[in-house]
Amino acid sequence: MTKKFAIGIDLGGTNLRVALVSEDGEIARKIRKASAERVFESLIESIGELMQDNIAGIGLGVAGLVDRRHGRVFTSPNLRTIEGIDLVQELRRRFNLPVFLENDANVAALGEKVSGAGRGFGNFVLLTLGTGIGGGIIHKGELLDVSAEVGHMSISAEGEKCQCGNNGCLENYASARAMISKAIMMLEKGQESLLKECCKGSIYKVTPEDIYKAALEGDTLSREVLREAGKALGVGLANLINILSPEAIILTGGLIGAWNIYVQEAIKEASRRAFKDLGDAVKIIPSSLGDEAGIVGAACLVFMNLAKTCPPRL
Amino acid sequence: MTKKFAIGIDLGGTNLRVALVSEDGEIARKIRKASAERVFESLIESIGELMQDNIAGIGLGVAGLVDRRHGRVFTSPNLRTIEGIDLVQELRRRFNLPVFLENDANVAALGEKVSGAGRGFGNFVLLTLGTGIGGGIIHKGELLDVSAEVGHMSISAEGEKCQCGNNGCLENYASARAMISKAIMMLEKGQESLLKECCKGSIYKVTPEDIYKAALEGDTLSREVLREAGKALGVGLANLINILSPEAIILTGGLIGAWNIYVQEAIKEASRRAFKDLGDAVKIIPSSLGDEAGIVGAACLVFMNLAKTCPPRL
Repeated sequence: MTKKFAIGIDLGGTNLRVALVSEDGEIARKIRKASAERVFESLIESIGELMQDNIAGIGLGVAGLVDRRHGRVFTSPNLRTIEGIDLVQELRRRFNLPVFLENDANVAALGEKVSGAGRGFGNFVLLTLGTGIGGGIIHKGELLDVSAEVGHMSISAEGEKCQCGNNGCLENYASARAMISKAIMMLEKGQESLLKECCKGSIYKVTPEDIYKAALEGDTLSREVLREAGKALGVGLANLINILSPEAIILTGGLIGAWNIYVQEAIKEASRRAFKDLGDAVKIIPSSLGDEAGIVGAACLVFMNLAKTCPPRL
Repeated sequence: MTKKFAIGIDLGGTNLRVALVSEDGEIARKIRKASAERVFESLIESIGELMQDNIAGIGLGVAGLVDRRHGRVFTSPNLRTIEGIDLVQELRRRFNLPVFLENDANVAALGEKVSGAGRGFGNFVLLTLGTGIGGGIIHKGELLDVSAEVGHMSISAEGEKCQCGNNGCLENYASARAMISKAIMMLEKGQESLLKECCKGSIYKVTPEDIYKAALEGDTLSREVLREAGKALGVGLANLINILSPEAIILTGGLIGAWNIYVQEAIKEASRRAFKDLGDAVKIIPSSLGDEAGIVGAACLVFMNLAKTCPPRL
């Protein structure tokens, strides 16, 4: 029997990744493009490039709120152009294949379960730590069919307004966007920092990488920004631990590069806040697939839905 | 074939309920006792009273943090006397029957799913609103095997210390205990209120019922207490909606008596805060089994675990 493949697509806020993935979770070929413009056309072209005979279907992970029942995207703040498009129907029509849609962090969780850091765990939560914060929940080895918008859990009821309409969302304190805002605000106030020299002369170009680098060089402002963001993340982790009692929390996304300050602070704070018995039982670890988790998980969505079972390695 | 029965036990902080429940979720006989003293002995006696031939097993819902893997209670702040007892082993040994243990709010969720307000929903969250706040999560018709300690999700990272060790837990703002503390604090400050006359001469004896009654009579202090607690509950509901995208949230416990002010305020706040598409899709409704949900759910735990399937009505 020839090996089956699926097309796995990870349509994030900044990048589009499309891959040909075998049913045992191996990536055969992949394409990466910026998702800034003409994203739908890029998507169609990329699928076309990977198309071959033995493809079981197309799995899509999209950054945004997904309407599972109708296979549509409710809202996608960083990909406004796709909100009006019925992606599932469009792809189905063009490629004559089954198409399945999920949130991008949810498929990343599935990817880590199938062939990444989640392989040994029945119950875990995956968090994507980047510009925003997303999540996916695995329970008894399967992806929970829920929104998992953990970045929009309020950890400060009276806190600042989030762009989602809520107040005090985790994302407002613990994401890359939050770190950058905080650093800029402190720099604008005239606080001394190595960051003043690093960002090509403009404090408005500061990145999380700059902040982490300066922090490692002992910069007080940068250390404070990372520690504050880490503490906030810890509040969110403790909430997830108390509610979902996972065996593991898998962290992925650009910010885990700052593990030694940001994540360590989060782990400390979570351990102080969560129920001791639950906190002691949870392992907080980095993803092993990194930014490939989404494409692997999206492809796995196809095999799972068609066979109503997960790939052998799950 | 004769009908099978199970013993369902709901061991809450203040009451012990034991019932004989048929496999279709009907209560044949039940016993209710205060759980204040000699709770383990009361439990044994009550089971003895209901014992008969065709009993498949014993299901236990206990107020506290449950160690599912080892069938033990980690901690039970309101039932300290049972923390040291290996309930499952003890009951198994004494009655020679299979015994299953769960958290009390989790079994209440299962009870509502089997024969209560949750029957029509595949995915819902149940919240017990009383002295504390507990939760149980149903996903695709089944009870999630998680702690669901929703009362100990922080909604105010820098808020007051909770007895669990965390800061700003939902329970500190939205429970009966929180309402009473708030009312007493306001009365101590000398604020005018009908409550001064209602509580047998002592403001320290005020109950949530007193507060609701006074609120209905137009008492400003009482209305504020209920509205503030309701708002906080709304923050928690919005967080659960954004994370778990349930079809329904089922509310139970003493506080739902104050539905018209407390819960209505919570619904308003949750709807302002949650993602619109998710908030619009969720029904926030009262439980239909009330304080019988726990015993029904605990008994169902037995049938489920033995048959690895739920009763026919599920």
